[in-house]
Amino acid sequence: MSAKLPDQTNDPAALTGDVYVQRFSVPFEYPVHFTRRAFHPRNALLADVLDRLGEGRRHRAVVFIDQGLADANRLLVNQIKEYFHEHPARLELAGAVNLLPGGPAVKSDYGAVREVLWTIGNLHLDRQSFVIAVGGGSLLDTVGFAASVAHRGLRLIRVPSTTLAQNDAGVGVKNGMDEHGQKNFLGTFAPPFAVVCDFDLLRTLPWEHWIAGAAEAFKVAVIKDTEFLDFLCTHAKDLRGRDESVMEQLVRRCAVLHLEHIRTGGDPFEFGSARPLDFGHWAAHRLEVLSGRRLSHGQAVAVGIALDTTYAAACGLIAPAERDRVLDAMDACGLPTWTATLAARTDEGELAVLEGIEQFREHLGGRLNVTLPAGLGHKTEVHHMDAAKIEAAVEFLSRRAPARETP
Amino acid sequence: MSAKLPDQTNDPAALTGDVYVQRFSVPFEYPVHFTRRAFHPRNALLADVLDRLGEGRRHRAVVFIDQGLADANRLLVNQIKEYFHEHPARLELAGAVNLLPGGPAVKSDYGAVREVLWTIGNLHLDRQSFVIAVGGGSLLDTVGFAASVAHRGLRLIRVPSTTLAQNDAGVGVKNGMDEHGQKNFLGTFAPPFAVVCDFDLLRTLPWEHWIAGAAEAFKVAVIKDTEFLDFLCTHAKDLRGRDESVMEQLVRRCAVLHLEHIRTGGDPFEFGSARPLDFGHWAAHRLEVLSGRRLSHGQAVAVGIALDTTYAAACGLIAPAERDRVLDAMDACGLPTWTATLAARTDEGELAVLEGIEQFREHLGGRLNVTLPAGLGHKTEVHHMDAAKIEAAVEFLSRRAPARETP
Repeated sequence: MSAKLPDQTNDPAALTGDVYVQRFSVPFEYPVHFTRRAFHPRNALLADVLDRLGEGRRHRAVVFIDQGLADANRLLVNQIKEYFHEHPARLELAGAVNLLPGGPAVKSDYGAVREVLWTIGNLHLDRQSFVIAVGGGSLLDTVGFAASVAHRGLRLIRVPSTTLAQNDAGVGVKNGMDEHGQKNFLGTFAPPFAVVCDFDLLRTLPWEHWIAGAAEAFKVAVIKDTEFLDFLCTHAKDLRGRDESVMEQLVRRCAVLHLEHIRTGGDPFEFGSARPLDFGHWAAHRLEVLSGRRLSHGQAVAVGIALDTTYAAACGLIAPAERDRVLDAMDACGLPTWTATLAARTDEGELAVLEGIEQFREHLGGRLNVTLPAGLGHKTEVHHMDAAKIEAAVEFLSRRAPARETP
Repeated sequence: MSAKLPDQTNDPAALTGDVYVQRFSVPFEYPVHFTRRAFHPRNALLADVLDRLGEGRRHRAVVFIDQGLADANRLLVNQIKEYFHEHPARLELAGAVNLLPGGPAVKSDYGAVREVLWTIGNLHLDRQSFVIAVGGGSLLDTVGFAASVAHRGLRLIRVPSTTLAQNDAGVGVKNGMDEHGQKNFLGTFAPPFAVVCDFDLLRTLPWEHWIAGAAEAFKVAVIKDTEFLDFLCTHAKDLRGRDESVMEQLVRRCAVLHLEHIRTGGDPFEFGSARPLDFGHWAAHRLEVLSGRRLSHGQAVAVGIALDTTYAAACGLIAPAERDRVLDAMDACGLPTWTATLAARTDEGELAVLEGIEQFREHLGGRLNVTLPAGLGHKTEVHHMDAAKIEAAVEFLSRRAPARETP
């Protein structure tokens, strides 16, 4: 036998005895643009975005669009085709403009994921090709998940078309599919290549989807930003009345707060105990499922915020007047602060929504972390939720609920 | 209307006009351990590894093991159960020890992914729970893919059981499933929580799997490390004769070179043009498919290296004597440098392996990048492969092929 190989190679520090500790960082960068008429031939933004690395080549892109959005904007599919036609030096439309159903149903349909995957495969798109997803949060999640696992990730451009997708789901780093009876049981952390928020797409939203984004705005305002909360309280009626200028300010502020939370939280992929912005969400996720999806995500989040705001007041974390200010402003916006589903009980007589606590813990891992306001505009975390106080909060919200029925 | 919200929030620099540029880095760290008898009750390594963040709690883990490995090591499943039993303060075995078929078939079976997902769901594992995968590269890929998308990623411990998995596939940051007729069409970049290479698991490998890891060793040695190549040439017959000490040195060196390439390459998730260590792989991936999987990955990589080494000599990148040195050493190890599949032709009369070039480009994206040796131990990249030179290389390898048949 001849000489042995030495244990160390290029970096003697890295291999110590019988362990090599691998360490590296992966930098991510993506722009979130706010624009109008994104697919107007003379708006160069989208073409600029695809070419933002200055690669100076023709970029192949496949487009998936939300059926509901296309139905409400009959010209949109053709506008998208024409947009590619108008930018031949930089853009190439791969295949057709593909329609996919939007809304929560698509998020639990692995068949839709498979359809996106096979389209990508059939078009021979590569890791430097683009997938452009145009639609609400559920469509963005479904297309985004597929795009993140094909060839281990194509470049995703999100064009969110709802207030909620523009100010929350569509600007972050995650996607998720509902499976196994759980919200987002399947998904990846997959930052997009870019996000293009087109305010004009909000115009044709049904009213319920229009106001849904305000729920996520209350979410961040109540725990992070008193100035923003003042704005929401002042403009509640304008939001309800579809004031576009007010909604645009809301969307922008909320999106930026969301982006900053990811950027400065120290744990964007949530490996440890760093928390996503999920105030009100433990109940919201459960209420969506319990209602058989009759409650939309935005509605469920609104009720979840109402519940945890009331709970926080019961714990002395905020004053009763602060609680009432938040609830009244949400009512004034037209966001639900009550749903009959909140009072649903299991066979054992427990509030069914309580099951959401363990599911929430399980999804995020480790011990329970629920974010609550601690003085409006500030937050704290609790690791236990008191069932009796939740009962009392449900009772309180039930008593102050307006007569109108929500699912 | 009252005052507008200012455009800027906490970080005025981040929101410029109508764009917010999101930037952050995600740090990854995982140890790769080399040990023996990993599941021996008195080897605390695995328990230490699960507790390496010092969380001081009982860690829940589900185990998936390669059927072929379990068949060859009849006591292994019980040893694993006993290991958990012996470390009750730190470890909890969730459910049974699950058997999954190993080998390339499992890599194209989404049903296996679904089985892992449902097991994770049924056991209510969370993002801080562990999935321990014990087996060859295909099993690690399949279990790893499922673990990376359940709740957006559980903690994966890989216990690779083949030479090839210990020195290459099992220590890196990727997983992959074959779909749509393409190798690794589906997959994620998902660094493991830790890797534990148990040399004792190599003992029961069939000879073909034993030597397969040497193919990946030649891959890195030829383009990166003359000292390692000298070692391989000197010890070719020892490797063929199952010298464990030599193989352990090979595995360790190859694994470390692989890890350092990921760490120092500047682009661990391959977003841009940084290249994985894939010398010889454009042909290898195609040969695996063309042979109907009768060629194993290791065999296919060996032939791919032989082809590109011969091609490099034809281009003047290495001397004929250097080419012969590599080919002779591979022959001496018992690695194939020829397969009849290499001479297969399409209906149009072209070498079928040539289709691998475009598929390789497509999988990695952007323009073609093929790594070739430029002087042994050094590498260069070319962006075009000359069909006539490939024809000549195939002809050369055919002529020098030993009489014995390979698939």
